[in-house]
Amino acid sequence: MTPPLRLFDLAGADDAVRFSPNCWRTRLALAHKGLPVQTIAWRFTEKEAIAKSGQGKVPVLVAGDRWLCESWDIAEYLEDTYPDRPSLFGCAQGRASARFVNQWASEVLHPAVARLVVPSIPAALHEKDRDYFRTTRQAAFGRTFEAMAAEHDEALESLGRVLAPLRSVLAKQAFLAGASPAYSDHAVFGAFQWARVISPVRLTGPDDPIAAWVDRMLDAYGGLARGAKRAVS
Amino acid sequence: MTPPLRLFDLAGADDAVRFSPNCWRTRLALAHKGLPVQTIAWRFTEKEAIAKSGQGKVPVLVAGDRWLCESWDIAEYLEDTYPDRPSLFGCAQGRASARFVNQWASEVLHPAVARLVVPSIPAALHEKDRDYFRTTRQAAFGRTFEAMAAEHDEALESLGRVLAPLRSVLAKQAFLAGASPAYSDHAVFGAFQWARVISPVRLTGPDDPIAAWVDRMLDAYGGLARGAKRAVS
Repeated sequence: MTPPLRLFDLAGADDAVRFSPNCWRTRLALAHKGLPVQTIAWRFTEKEAIAKSGQGKVPVLVAGDRWLCESWDIAEYLEDTYPDRPSLFGCAQGRASARFVNQWASEVLHPAVARLVVPSIPAALHEKDRDYFRTTRQAAFGRTFEAMAAEHDEALESLGRVLAPLRSVLAKQAFLAGASPAYSDHAVFGAFQWARVISPVRLTGPDDPIAAWVDRMLDAYGGLARGAKRAVS
Repeated sequence: MTPPLRLFDLAGADDAVRFSPNCWRTRLALAHKGLPVQTIAWRFTEKEAIAKSGQGKVPVLVAGDRWLCESWDIAEYLEDTYPDRPSLFGCAQGRASARFVNQWASEVLHPAVARLVVPSIPAALHEKDRDYFRTTRQAAFGRTFEAMAAEHDEALESLGRVLAPLRSVLAKQAFLAGASPAYSDHAVFGAFQWARVISPVRLTGPDDPIAAWVDRMLDAYGGLARGAKRAVS
């Protein structure tokens, strides 16, 4: 028996604007497993709503009486709980190597993309989140959003360098997981969907092999990511 | 029938000093598959010896009448030619994600390590390789070895940042491929063995989870990497 699944999913002022890269990882993993989920619009400051997860960030997946957090841990939970559904990792080695891809995305790609998209976020946030977001993010980056916005061109150039190994791999194979998408793709694509939903910035040129992969990911799982409402157009 | 395998393997002035990170990838992959190989000491300027491979770099693996080059392509050849021997990738998803790990090592890790170890290399080279090495590498890096050596501290700090996702993963699992080593490990460890054989530089602190993994890799395959002769001690 599959317990009903609920996902606390970061939202903007508009409930339908879901922009968290880490939540997108989980939504794609759920779609990959063919598991229906009820998403709950959640804002940064609604800490009490997810207190049972023992921390204050989303994604938080509620599966029956289990409260799960951290996108990687959720992916492992889904793989181990639903082994007969399409695999997120393929095999033990696939899982282990996907962890590196996931970690690279979290520690290298996300900060590089954040420099470009974070200044666009406040405009899309619920009013109650704006001060919290500005205070925590400016502290994390060590500078104001205005200073970050002024570094846009340099940040875009820097991202181009960060994307080099991704670009090389996607010039050789359709997806990071091979011929069809799986968790390595979810882990990395989250950042591209983040930028797409919340920001007018284009992370790559149109002829980049990464752009073609983003297009394939937008179409995957019945166009789940392509159908997402954007704060900007 | 297994054709006899021969590997052109980069050597220093001392035949026994084998220091190429890409050749170490192939040697570990061959050991993983349990395939005996005859290595042939090769120097940068001996282009004619490997002309049949259609290019001028090692590793070059000769399998019967096939001449193979590029460490990744050799790994795929070994996996596909010897499917019944221990797998380098585990499954198709494992192979696809390992390609990203491999590409990250080639495009991000190798240049970061090169800044630290390249200035040590000329002293270990065969006399006939020295001019070639200095000319090609200084052109590639856009500065002299002396200028690179002067940037040592900054290069070490920069490497520390580059290693962040590797460090995080190896704090969670024994090997990049999971509970035991496979090609994701070979692909990354090559750079550490490069530094170990040819340079006095230590790439990490002793308490770094990466240092413990390097130790495990040195012991793997009957201590193949640990037994390698070092140009420095």
